[in-house]
Amino acid sequence: MPDTELFLRQGAERRLRGGHLWVYSNEVDTARHALTDFAPGQTVLVRSARGEVLGSAYMDPHSLICARLYAPGENCALDTAFFTRRLGEALAGRETAFDEPFYRLVYGDSDGLPGVVVDRFGDYLVVQLNNAGAESGREALLDALRETLQPAGILLRADSRERRDSGLAREAEVVFGDVPEQVDLRENGVHFLAPVHSGQKTGWFYDHRVGRARLAPWVAGKSVLDVYSYIGGWGIQAAAFGASSVCCVDSSQPALDGVLVNARLNALEERVSVRRGQAADTLQALRDEGQMFDVVILDPPAFIQRRKDLKKGLTAYRRIYELGLRLLPPGGLLVAGSCSMHLARADMLSVLQQAAVRAGCRVQVVEQSAQGADHPIHPAIPETEYLKGVFLCRL
Amino acid sequence: MPDTELFLRQGAERRLRGGHLWVYSNEVDTARHALTDFAPGQTVLVRSARGEVLGSAYMDPHSLICARLYAPGENCALDTAFFTRRLGEALAGRETAFDEPFYRLVYGDSDGLPGVVVDRFGDYLVVQLNNAGAESGREALLDALRETLQPAGILLRADSRERRDSGLAREAEVVFGDVPEQVDLRENGVHFLAPVHSGQKTGWFYDHRVGRARLAPWVAGKSVLDVYSYIGGWGIQAAAFGASSVCCVDSSQPALDGVLVNARLNALEERVSVRRGQAADTLQALRDEGQMFDVVILDPPAFIQRRKDLKKGLTAYRRIYELGLRLLPPGGLLVAGSCSMHLARADMLSVLQQAAVRAGCRVQVVEQSAQGADHPIHPAIPETEYLKGVFLCRL
Repeated sequence: MPDTELFLRQGAERRLRGGHLWVYSNEVDTARHALTDFAPGQTVLVRSARGEVLGSAYMDPHSLICARLYAPGENCALDTAFFTRRLGEALAGRETAFDEPFYRLVYGDSDGLPGVVVDRFGDYLVVQLNNAGAESGREALLDALRETLQPAGILLRADSRERRDSGLAREAEVVFGDVPEQVDLRENGVHFLAPVHSGQKTGWFYDHRVGRARLAPWVAGKSVLDVYSYIGGWGIQAAAFGASSVCCVDSSQPALDGVLVNARLNALEERVSVRRGQAADTLQALRDEGQMFDVVILDPPAFIQRRKDLKKGLTAYRRIYELGLRLLPPGGLLVAGSCSMHLARADMLSVLQQAAVRAGCRVQVVEQSAQGADHPIHPAIPETEYLKGVFLCRL
Repeated sequence: MPDTELFLRQGAERRLRGGHLWVYSNEVDTARHALTDFAPGQTVLVRSARGEVLGSAYMDPHSLICARLYAPGENCALDTAFFTRRLGEALAGRETAFDEPFYRLVYGDSDGLPGVVVDRFGDYLVVQLNNAGAESGREALLDALRETLQPAGILLRADSRERRDSGLAREAEVVFGDVPEQVDLRENGVHFLAPVHSGQKTGWFYDHRVGRARLAPWVAGKSVLDVYSYIGGWGIQAAAFGASSVCCVDSSQPALDGVLVNARLNALEERVSVRRGQAADTLQALRDEGQMFDVVILDPPAFIQRRKDLKKGLTAYRRIYELGLRLLPPGGLLVAGSCSMHLARADMLSVLQQAAVRAGCRVQVVEQSAQGADHPIHPAIPETEYLKGVFLCRL
């Protein structure tokens, strides 16, 4: 059990009682204990000003969010038994929702494990520990993963935003067994190889699975442009669902090499081509060349990483949406993905509408997708919801 | 072409230029013409204060929304050719999205036909005309429907909210061919008979199709309670997807009779039972009887019909969600549907969370669904989005 207590100010327990898991530094009763008394990652028992137990948390004393509850309402050690219990809950949901062992097994706060991400690729696991508390539970978590799943290998990827912003090298470390450079996965019945050591994030983005599945009726027999393709998550699935041609655009040659690997893996190489370039430049060049596509997919990295980037980000989204719409004939489809947590879905629809006005066309939203069962949303923590997919038909 | 013009006040064209279709009565230049000069349903050419053409609209001069654009940017008669063009666009989208001719063919503003709803059940069409403008185009619309679809019968159902609020009888009138009391449809591969003359709205709710399809992995082998079942849209599909037992609850005996008809139609009568009662009373009674269900589906009618009902409505939703959660074991699933346009999705998640706190359980959202391709959203008109489905797992 945590042997240290953290007392909150009067009234500050309210959000936690409502199910939230975060304690802000200004909610701590610093008359009782200075935040500097706590070590990063230290576990504490959180109590209200009146002494009621609110749960067990781990500390990040130098951050605005200075503690995160991993066991609300409980006095509970951060040990293998705890992680095994949480993994059991998470696994039960995934095994109900998915036929095959390819999914995000742990999605942080929503799975009761703040800062922990585990992606499963069959027998291989890729783990991210995104705060000091998660880091402090590392060995217990790894034990629990080995016990629960008997993996062949576990890869730890350290590339949180903090590391990236500090210009630190991305590190990948095999902490158990062996993990090959490329691991197999299937999504919506389509086969992929993902570069888990060197690729973006954990090597694969399971989050748009639901949206990609919805492509099927819209792409059969159609020409498709997949911009920001990475290794072909959308584009290869479009080809597998019957698109007559798919052009994948990315600025990264390794990503495009991955597209070609994945095309061959599904015997789709005759219908898949690649083009290297920056997204906006390439969209403009395709327009200048007089090319048109029945379906244009735009799933960029987050243009709005922080709230202060909102205005600039909205402009960036509007620009690519307009460029995309200009490549569509009437009846064509724009598939827009966004992983910007700070972009509300309603604002995304507004920006799409603004782009349509600039492109001079009427549009309607014909499908919307969201995070699936392996990226559950914690309804008390709006920050756990970030993903949006919108299918926009040009009339 | 409309032979009358409607001039807006200075600056009032802005929203229409942004793609919106509605003119509010305070935006009209009433110095040029009094609204009382216009007849309900009359078509007009809408111009900005400076005389630029904004589009063709039909009038509802006694309403807050006094005109609705049916042809933005165009000077266009409300004739058969116009309706044929709109139906062609709408049909193209539906035929791409769906394998079979069972869908909402026209969804009002989003399909460029303000106030017009057409549901298609194979060879039969059910039409609603929800404002004076749509009513004025009735004969041209019916001509276009006959030309475009060669239906066996067209049923006109007059049961807009205005009629309901005035206590007027619901009227159903066959305006072309013959329409049987019950018509066939298939949704997600499951067979139904819908009472189009006497049932709720058009007799069937195609809007939750996407959410119902997502039931499949969650209900196989499970016990399911479907409250507010109507004729079994959710419940019968759950049984077809492999639920071990389904209990449908509704306060209407004709609805429950429909459930049993639809169960037999799919040879599912051994796994489907019905129970007549008010929703909240029945949920409480089931709890008192000590019954539990793996999956509880709650898809009530709109509890928030007008913005002023928001607070009362939120309380009503919270109450049934709490009652539903109390019937679930750990690992159980609450499927919550809402068709209240005034309930934002974020507020729905908040209310679900509040219910979870009251029921004393941790929860996570594992699926979300929205309107599908036959209820497209007009991104300039937030009012065209109303449907929400949330799958909430009790941890």
